[in-house]
Order: sequence, then C-alpha cells, then structure tokens
Amino acid sequence: MADPREKEMGVLLRRLFPIHRSITGKGVRETLRVLKKYIPLKVHEVGSGTKALDWRVPDEWNIKDAYIKDPSGKKVIDFKQNNLHVLNYSIPIRAKMPLAELSEHIHTLPAQPGLIPYKTSYYKRNWGFCMTERQKKKLVAGTYEVVIDSSLEKGSLTYGELVIAGRTKEEILFSTYVCHPSMANDNVSGPVLLSMLARHLLKLKRKKLRYTYRFIFIPETIGSIVWLSRNRPVLGRIAGGLVATCVGDKGPLTYKRSRRGAALIDRAVENALARPGKKSKIKYRVMDFDPAAGSDERQFCSPGFDLPVGSLMRTPYGRYPEYHTSGDDLSVVRPKYLRETLDRYIDTVAELEDDEYYESRSPFGEPQLGRRGLYSAIGPAKNEGVRESAMLTVLNYSDGAHNLSWIARHSGLPLKELRAIARILVLHRLIRRVA
Amino acid sequence: MADPREKEMGVLLRRLFPIHRSITGKGVRETLRVLKKYIPLKVHEVGSGTKALDWRVPDEWNIKDAYIKDPSGKKVIDFKQNNLHVLNYSIPIRAKMPLAELSEHIHTLPAQPGLIPYKTSYYKRNWGFCMTERQKKKLVAGTYEVVIDSSLEKGSLTYGELVIAGRTKEEILFSTYVCHPSMANDNVSGPVLLSMLARHLLKLKRKKLRYTYRFIFIPETIGSIVWLSRNRPVLGRIAGGLVATCVGDKGPLTYKRSRRGAALIDRAVENALARPGKKSKIKYRVMDFDPAAGSDERQFCSPGFDLPVGSLMRTPYGRYPEYHTSGDDLSVVRPKYLRETLDRYIDTVAELEDDEYYESRSPFGEPQLGRRGLYSAIGPAKNEGVRESAMLTVLNYSDGAHNLSWIARHSGLPLKELRAIARILVLHRLIRRVA
Amino acid sequence: MADPREKEMGVLLRRLFPIHRSITGKGVRETLRVLKKYIPLKVHEVGSGTKALDWRVPDEWNIKDAYIKDPSGKKVIDFKQNNLHVLNYSIPIRAKMPLAELSEHIHTLPAQPGLIPYKTSYYKRNWGFCMTERQKKKLVAGTYEVVIDSSLEKGSLTYGELVIAGRTKEEILFSTYVCHPSMANDNVSGPVLLSMLARHLLKLKRKKLRYTYRFIFIPETIGSIVWLSRNRPVLGRIAGGLVATCVGDKGPLTYKRSRRGAALIDRAVENALARPGKKSKIKYRVMDFDPAAGSDERQFCSPGFDLPVGSLMRTPYGRYPEYHTSGDDLSVVRPKYLRETLDRYIDTVAELEDDEYYESRSPFGEPQLGRRGLYSAIGPAKNEGVRESAMLTVLNYSDGAHNLSWIARHSGLPLKELRAIARILVLHRLIRRVA
Repeated sequence: MADPREKEMGVLLRRLFPIHRSITGKGVRETLRVLKKYIPLKVHEVGSGTKALDWRVPDEWNIKDAYIKDPSGKKVIDFKQNNLHVLNYSIPIRAKMPLAELSEHIHTLPAQPGLIPYKTSYYKRNWGFCMTERQKKKLVAGTYEVVIDSSLEKGSLTYGELVIAGRTKEEILFSTYVCHPSMANDNVSGPVLLSMLARHLLKLKRKKLRYTYRFIFIPETIGSIVWLSRNRPVLGRIAGGLVATCVGDKGPLTYKRSRRGAALIDRAVENALARPGKKSKIKYRVMDFDPAAGSDERQFCSPGFDLPVGSLMRTPYGRYPEYHTSGDDLSVVRPKYLRETLDRYIDTVAELEDDEYYESRSPFGEPQLGRRGLYSAIGPAKNEGVRESAMLTVLNYSDGAHNLSWIARHSGLPLKELRAIARILVLHRLIRRVA
Repeated sequence: MADPREKEMGVLLRRLFPIHRSITGKGVRETLRVLKKYIPLKVHEVGSGTKALDWRVPDEWNIKDAYIKDPSGKKVIDFKQNNLHVLNYSIPIRAKMPLAELSEHIHTLPAQPGLIPYKTSYYKRNWGFCMTERQKKKLVAGTYEVVIDSSLEKGSLTYGELVIAGRTKEEILFSTYVCHPSMANDNVSGPVLLSMLARHLLKLKRKKLRYTYRFIFIPETIGSIVWLSRNRPVLGRIAGGLVATCVGDKGPLTYKRSRRGAALIDRAVENALARPGKKSKIKYRVMDFDPAAGSDERQFCSPGFDLPVGSLMRTPYGRYPEYHTSGDDLSVVRPKYLRETLDRYIDTVAELEDDEYYESRSPFGEPQLGRRGLYSAIGPAKNEGVRESAMLTVLNYSDGAHNLSWIARHSGLPLKELRAIARILVLHRLIRRVA
Repeated sequence: MADPREKEMGVLLRRLFPIHRSITGKGVRETLRVLKKYIPLKVHEVGSGTKALDWRVPDEWNIKDAYIKDPSGKKVIDFKQNNLHVLNYSIPIRAKMPLAELSEHIHTLPAQPGLIPYKTSYYKRNWGFCMTERQKKKLVAGTYEVVIDSSLEKGSLTYGELVIAGRTKEEILFSTYVCHPSMANDNVSGPVLLSMLARHLLKLKRKKLRYTYRFIFIPETIGSIVWLSRNRPVLGRIAGGLVATCVGDKGPLTYKRSRRGAALIDRAVENALARPGKKSKIKYRVMDFDPAAGSDERQFCSPGFDLPVGSLMRTPYGRYPEYHTSGDDLSVVRPKYLRETLDRYIDTVAELEDDEYYESRSPFGEPQLGRRGLYSAIGPAKNEGVRESAMLTVLNYSDGAHNLSWIARHSGLPLKELRAIARILVLHRLIRRVA
C-alpha cells in the first residue's frame, strides 16, 4: 500500500539509529559506510589540528565502553544500554569516588525526569554521564566505580561527499550531519532523506540535470567549517542549498529561509510548498533566517560567505519535547513523514530544474484549435475541461518568459497536464521550446 | 423613481432579446440595426473565406425555420418557440428518421432537466437540436420528421464600430459581442450597456475627451480575430480596454484584469470600484487574467498582442446556473443592475479622463482662509465640515502631482465636492490648474 | 512605586492647567515662564502686524475678567470659575441687554449638556460666552449685565524655543502649542511631555547626540506660520519632526505619518512603536497624513515646505468626547499614560540616534566562541540563552549594513543585550565598529 520508498527509508533509519556517533571517530565512518551501500559517497579524512577558518580540527574521539557501578558493584549506568549516557567527547576516566564528587559530572533533565539528555563537551576537556532524573534520584550514598574507556588522540575528522554533475557548473548544495549518537529525528532522519534524494537524482542523471548537485554528510558545525575552508572555489558556483535536519517527525513542514531571504532556493522551496495540485494543500510555515539557532546554515550564511542556503525541516530543533534527549527515538520519526518531506525536496529540485519555456508560433489571437482537431466541436466533454484549459493557458503564456512551473502555480492546473499539453502543442507546431 | 436610463435599458433589452443571432448572418445585422437607432455605428462586412490571423471567416449561416414532428405528426420541438432549439450553425436537413438516429443529434442538460442548452458547431459541419431533458424523455419510439431550414453559404461576417475622437489619438477600446441567440445576461446585456456608455460619451464630446473611445460590437472570437487582423495600426494606440459581458445579473461586480495585470485600465477600474463616496461601498471582486475561460479578452491578450484589455462583469460566464441555457432569459437581468454596472464603466472613464491637477499659489503654510471668507469664524457648522475638509485637502495636495481623483480616493472625500472646492479656490487665486 | 517622572509630570500638569492662554498674551508668557524652570527655553516676541507667509501676527489679546449677571444681579457666568466661559479673543464689552440679544452670543453643546465648549474668534472681531446647555436653559427672561474686560491691542506673539546641538547640523524638530485655556489633553499634555523629553536629551548631551534637536512651544497655526517664516535657513536641515498633542489620555498610541509617508521620522516612530522587548506589545495604530484635521503638521507639511513631520499622539483631536470642552480636564490625562508616550518619544530618538554599525573581523563561518571563553562548554544554562542568541545574532549581522536597532527589531532580542554583547565582541576583536 505504502510508497516503497517508505519501507526502504524505514530500513535505513533502523540501521543507522543504533550507531554511536560523534563529530569524529568510528561512528561517523560506520555511518558513511552504510550510506555508501546506497550512494557512491566519497569519504574525506582531515587530520586533527588542521586549521579551518577560525577553528582547528579537534583530536579524534573514540569510545569502547562506559559505566557506573554503585557501592554494591551493580552497573547502574551502562553506555551499552544507551549511548547518550556518556557526555560526548568525554576524556577517559577509571576511578572510584563518592557520590558527591560523581554528582558534579552527572547531567539530567529535572523537567523531563524519564529522559536522558544529550550533552557534549567537544572543545573543553571534561568527562561526564547523562542519565534520567529518576536514575539519579535512586543513587545512594557510597563509593562508585566510574569507567569511561575512551580515547582522544590525533586522528582525523571524516565526512562524505557526492557530486552529481549536471549540464552547468552551477551547484545546488544539500548538507546534513552525521555526528549525533542514537537520536532519530535529530540526527538520523537527515542522512536517510538526503541519501534517498541523491539516489533519486542519480537515476535522473541520464536526463541531464541543469544543475550540479553536491551532497555533503558532515559533522555539524566543525564539519561545515572544514568543508567551507577546503572548498573556496566551489562557493562562488553555489546557486542554492538546503540543510536537512529534523525531517521525519509528524509536525508541519518548516522552511527556514536563507540569510538573503529571497534567493533562488527560497523561491524554489516556497513554490514547491505552495504548489497546488490534485492533493489537498500541504501545511507548512516559513521562518526568516535566524543565526542564533540552527544547524550548518549558520556557517553557510555567515556574513563573509552569505551563501543562499536555507533549511527545509519539519518541526525545528528545540521545538519538540524529545529534542536532544533519549526520547528522540524511532517512535518520533515515521517513514511516512520522511517520504512526505522527501517529496518536497524532490519538488524543490523540480522547481530548480524546470526549464520548460515555450514560445508561441501563433501568438496573435488564439490559434484555431478546432481545425487542428484540438478542440471538441460542440463543447468539451466533462473530462476534457482540464485539457482545454491547459491548452489555452499554455498557449497564452508561451511567450518565452514563463516556464511550466510558473504556469502551473499561477493557473492552479496540474504541472503534469501542462507538460502533456505542451508536447502536443509542439507536435502541432503551435509552440516551440526556447533555450 | 428609478433612473430614466434604467427604463431605457429595459426597453432595449427587450427589443434585442428575441432576435436570433449567430456569428454571421441576419441576426447580427438586425441587432446592429437596432443599436444604430441609439448610436451612429458604422457596420462592416467581411467576406467569407477572408484570412484573419490563424483563422478564416466562415461561410454565412442563416436559418428560417426548424422543427421536429413526432410519429403522430405533432411538432414537439419548434425553433419559433425558442431559438436555442437548434444547434447553432446547423447545416440544413429535411429527413425522417427513427428516434434512435435522431437521438444522436439531441443535446440536453440532464442535471438541469427544465432548461435547453445553448450549443454551437461553427467549424465542424453538423446538425442538431437542443431541448430540455424533460422534452427528450417524452419522445416515444417511432419515426420523426426533422427539418432545419438553414443555409450555410458564401456571404460575410458583420460587425459594428463607433469611434469617438478625443483630444489625443490614444484609444480606449470597449468591446462586446452580438452573436448569441436569445440569452439575456450572456449576451444581450453587453450591447445594451455599451450602447448607453457610448451615448453618454457622445454627449460629453463637446467637452473634448482626452482619449479616443472605440466601441466594437462583434461576433465573439472570430469577430475579435477579424477586427485585430484588420486594425493593426490601431493596436499600438490602445491605452486600455474592456470587454463587456454578463453585465446585468444581480451578482457582485467582477473585474478580470488584463494579462499585464497592472496596466492603466486595471488601475482605472479598480479605482472606480474602490471609489469611496456618500453611498455604501460597492461589493466587488477582482480576478487575475485567465486565458482558459473568458470572452474576447483572450484574443486581445494573446501573447503576440498583449493589449491592456480587461473585462468588467457581474457574475462571470459559467458561474451562474442559467449560463448558456434557456434559463438566461429576461428574468436574470435587471435594468437596475445594468445601470449600476454602467455607472462603474462611467466611473472608469472618469478615472481615465481626470486631468484636474492643481498647483497651489500659496504653498507655504496654509493660506489664511478666514480673511478670504472661506472659513467660518467660530468653527464650522455641522454641514460645513465636509467643505472645509475638502478645502484643506485640495490646498495641501495641489502640488501639480495629484489629480482630484487621487485626492478623492486618498481622502475619502466625494470627488464632486473636491471639484466644487477646486473651482472656488481657483477663483480666490489660491490654486491654479496645471496642464 | 511609579516612575519618578510620572510624579514630576503630574506636578507640571497641575501647574500649567489653570493658566488662561490664547494665541497671544500673558497666558502664553506665564506658561513659558513655568517651563523655563525645567528647560532653558529662549522666548521670542514677534510684533503685531508682522507679515508671516500668507498671514499677519494679530493684535495681542488679554483678559482680566468676564461675567454675566442675571436680572437679579447674580453672577450666573464667571470667567474666574472657568476660563472657557469666554469666547477666546472676545473684544471688550460692558453692556446691559435682554436675554434674546445675549443669546446670540452664547455657545453651548446641546448634545453634551453638562460641558462648556471651547470656542475662539481670533480673526473676526466678535464677543461671546460659552456655557453648558444646562446653564443656558436656566437663564430667565430679563435684562442681563454683560462684562468682558479684555483688551485687543498692538503687542506681540510669544513663543519658546530650545536648541540642543548635536554632532551634526541636521535637525529633529519637536513642536507643541501653548495657546489653549484650561484643557488637559488638548493642550497641557504636549508641553509637559516635550519639556520632559528636552530635559532627557539635555542630560544625554555629553554623550554627543548625532542630531541637533529643536523644541518649539508655539501658539497653534499662527505660531508655526510665524516660526516657519522666520526660520527658512533651518528648514533645509530638518531631517524629521513630531508634533506633540493629546499625548496623555488612556487611548492607544496613534502615529499620524508625515505627508511624505515613508520619511526617516516615519520609520523611526513606527520602529519605536513596533519594538519588541520583554514587555508585552504596545497597542498602537498608524494613520496616513491628513491635512483636513490636525495640528501644526498641517503647516509643516504644506506642499511648499513638505517637511518630514508627523505627529505622535494617543487619542487624536476630535476623537474623544471631551475634546474642546471643559470635560478635557485633569481627569482625562494620567501621568502614567504621559510617561508611556514619553517613552515612545525617547525610543524614537534612540531609533534616530542609533549608529551602532559593526563589521565582523571573522566573517567566514562562526568564530570559535568556546576557545575565547564566550560559549558555555556543555550547553547554555537557562539564563545564558539570551546572551548566546545575542552573540550569534550580532556576529552574523555585523556586516556594516545593519545597526543594532535593526538587529533588535528583526531578532526580537532586547537592544540593551545586543549593545552589551557588541561591546564584548569588540573587546575580543571579533567585530569592529564602522562609521
């Protein structure tokens, strides 16, 4: 019954969810390895300490195990149970300490006592555990054994990249991140969606896309900083881009505009969302760019770059209760919503790609359609009404200045019908395609 | 009690309604003959076969009689009862045939079983009868006598034209059609309204209009195609135009914009509709141009011409249940609504014509009105309030850049009052008219 | 509890209210004398008969006493009870007359039978009394003694002026009038507010204001006419201005735009009113310029001058029932509302003055804040959220094109916070101020 892509996305979602990720290390590599089964990603490694804009690539972090044993020797917190239990980028520790000392390294969410928070300390060396408020309350006085079997050493930062060449060198950039541990909407939903989108475009490739499409799967913030620092020549060719994050929950679609606010990408996404058609209207909202909260669009839209990059999401980061907690699990993301968002990404590409501009060969008055067998003689039968409307509408707007997407939006007629009619009118030598 | 124009329009409406019209033939000529009693129309004849843009003028069609006799010899359908009974442009036929064969040539409206549809077959040779679904259901099996005493022969296409010269060669085009048989709103209302509008402008002529006004009374589609093909030099001088159709029903006024969307005519009509005044606000709606449905604006606004021509109607074609049926009779159109629409056409002309721009002779501060006897000494009496507001408002906006229409719209003060005040201020040498 | 300025404004309000004022004479002088205790006003005297634009300065009017004694010798109307009782600018009279003759000189408000109207006859020599409709109805037939002990003689017109020099010669003009007798909202509220605003700016002076601020306290209409005629060289330097009138009632704030409609001052006021912040939103409305009703903006915005001067009020003249009656007393104006309006005037000045434009020194990507100790390591504590948002927002919009006011409005973040953050970012050499 369901779209087969939904099933496929469900599978990939469940495959990626359990992997423990951070901004560097084996989790990112494993995630990219999984994605490479779907799309031919090129994996880049950038050595620790490499300068990138105002930043440096940090040491690589890896973790094997982590736990807390209570005074009776029972494991009360276990990284293997939930990889959110460790403060991301915790330095290694192996110690015994009283509860009071341990407590200073415990993070909870008192307002959401059943959820484990997601916390990080990438650039300040620290260690810590995250747990539910309920778990914390159960800890009794005494001496605890604390183990974090991690390493923080010279290594590299890893990211994946895929370029699908189009007819022009102008690029559309799709970016998502692969650095959060087991969280579904914020994080796994983005890579799942962009993989499917990339695969969709790879299939279209023979049709020759107008734009070159670049996909990057990077660690958030430092990854886009690194990518930006290494791709200066590319930046001038970026005609637009989107950051995919939180794309699988049930909330309405949300488009956060690029800093420019009215760039090509902004129009394309807003047109894609507003697209009329047979189906009921899509519920969505549009936000202005905001540098204070967000994902990598903050880097792409920093004032020195000011790239036309927006973000097409469902419920934005921080606006759903499970955000950055263990509650953001597979129950938050549904393949159905992922697929719905994917379709809006595909529609956006269609908006960007549409170059069906026509010019009438008979622009003075309506051409006589009846004589050409294009018009029912006595009046349209009920089911021919749309076709005739489409014909008259395409004829009128075939002035070399309006493409079929514009005509579809403006008239409310289905794009598919307009495309079909345009082919017929070309055959009848009533319109010609213009470059 | 009522406006005398309403009575007059009622008379003309009833005079034109019964005439049987088609896109060529005697009905058009008789219609124009009637209108010539009101306005000095020039009648043009264009021979069958003449090329016109992508079209050719069809043969001329005329009809004397048509009927169906049932097996008992009784006339069950009679063109003389209702001229919608014949498929417009039916070729002649005189035959006997069983009901099954006849049925293939019968058109009804099953969803409106008491109404006769209006159907045509101008360019495909065919014959047919239109009747109510109820009439069709009463037809018993047997042999029917079928007679259509029509002719389809070389002849000509007829249209009427009137040009009222103004001070400039720039033209405003008013167009309506005279090709439908007995239907009131869609068709007779248009010619009635434009005749009255033309007569109104003819009376104003001595005042020297700024624009030249051209009225055309044509068969729909082929008539505008023919007119456009024969008047190329005129087209470049068309500053705006309106197609009058469905102008007499009780629905709210509807303005369908020109293809350009924001042309002079669009502003003029929208200003005329939005005009504030003593009366309650006019209910109206504005639609964007749509080439898929409509009247001759489809030809005027075809992309090669793209003339600034809109259409000011009441309920548009296809949006009232009696449209293109025998139900569109004199009960649908009321002289009162026709007159109301006429007034909006007149207001539109006023908007186009208004050239009352003034310049203050005392632009620095308000002039001292009291000293000139223009200001009540202690404060305005109740009925002087509007006059004083008008005076201050005209004085302030007399900067050579705002005409009285603008001031009226902007301030909400009646144009009449502003005109009166402007005369007084000119006399007091406080403002001067600018060219 | 309340803002100390409220108390102070209450004191000044009560001090000015009882003074009897007209467009010339001792009342204006006494009013300015009171205001001089608060701000260093310069007082100008312009001789009767002086030409001013289309006008001449009228003779000076003063009044000592006025009353009506009824047939029994009882004072039924007494100027000392309420100074609205005399038609402003009444010529002197000392006479006995029957009620019928007296009645022709009596003004009442039949629709508001308990209120005395405010009436004037500045330029037509006349005399009269204003009283409540109830008082008039009680007058019995008989002979009345009528006394108006006034003088109308060569003298001068008086106004006050204060110029606070800024870094530039460009001026912001604040104007109010000091010519109405005992009425609170329309009139006394304006001078009270502008005195406080001037004192506020005088205190800021050391900080060097960008604009030069000019305050004028003038008689309405003739005062602005006179001021305009004497200050032609100043006019070209006026970058914006506001007329303060009816600024103390409980109604929502109302901004009447300058004739230009989108001048600097219009943007500044509308930004000040729309300013988001911690407090709930301000209720306000914006009106287009209207020359037919208003105060001295009618003169400033006359077409020859067309100065960018608007008017920031609460309930405009004529729109509250006590307007121009004895009902417009101290019960209509509350110090709380005056203070609220004053704050919007202050915000408007802030909008005009704000020149905090910054440029990022690290515009490519976000600078690494953590390394500089500007970012909490694990995630912001609750109370640090605003600070971090402000930091990221200022960094992103530090492109030399957006000032802090713009950023505050656009982001919804408090201007104060943005200013504080900007200082910190300058210290960390992350942004630099641009001229």
